[in-house]
Amino acid sequence: MEIDFEKMQGLAPAIVQDAATGEVLMLGFMNRESLQLTLNTGYVTFYSRTRQKLWMKGETSGNRLKLISAATDCDNDSVLVRVKVEGDGLVCHEGTRSCFTKPLAAGANGAASITDAKPVPEVKA
Amino acid sequence: MEIDFEKMQGLAPAIVQDAATGEVLMLGFMNRESLQLTLNTGYVTFYSRTRQKLWMKGETSGNRLKLISAATDCDNDSVLVRVKVEGDGLVCHEGTRSCFTKPLAAGANGAASITDAKPVPEVKA
Repeated sequence: MEIDFEKMQGLAPAIVQDAATGEVLMLGFMNRESLQLTLNTGYVTFYSRTRQKLWMKGETSGNRLKLISAATDCDNDSVLVRVKVEGDGLVCHEGTRSCFTKPLAAGANGAASITDAKPVPEVKA
Repeated sequence: MEIDFEKMQGLAPAIVQDAATGEVLMLGFMNRESLQLTLNTGYVTFYSRTRQKLWMKGETSGNRLKLISAATDCDNDSVLVRVKVEGDGLVCHEGTRSCFTKPLAAGANGAASITDAKPVPEVKA
């Protein structure tokens, strides 16, 4: 299986899903080496964009991500890893199980939730 | 909520998950406008990197992704959208429900599954 790392300058997004519950836990990035390490060692290893180095998730905290299965998608440019979280089971550095804890408001006012516009001051008549 | 689109030159990866079953269906990319449209219209819209334009998933096929909920993660640089798939329920253009249909072999030979190295020819003694 050839992964297309070229679309993102050597990286592919990797979704981490709890294999037992289906919960999406986090998204990281992998280069070829980190994907190889993930598949070979059975523990999820990312490539940190900010630190520009390989990073085995949970190596320090003990909350390692034990690989249960991995797949790529139809155009081979992203990865889904299904895992069992070791240690205390908390994946996010903020102390939650999943990193996706911040709801985005949908509906007519949804856009407001992703702009950085300051609130319009109330005009007094 | 401010989304950090700068890490990926104006884009953020967006994971699409079936809200009912938890199945991960696909990964696309959103720019600010496509995320706003997604939240405002209630249907998932991506930004196509290859076509360089907005792309409402399923607009042609009818297999639109109706937004159930959306969230961002701890560092605000990726999005999780939980959806109900309309139409015939098939998200992948290859006719499957999920795009993640290609298993990557784990274990000692896992790396072989992602290299493009040609097999080493057998040397005859």
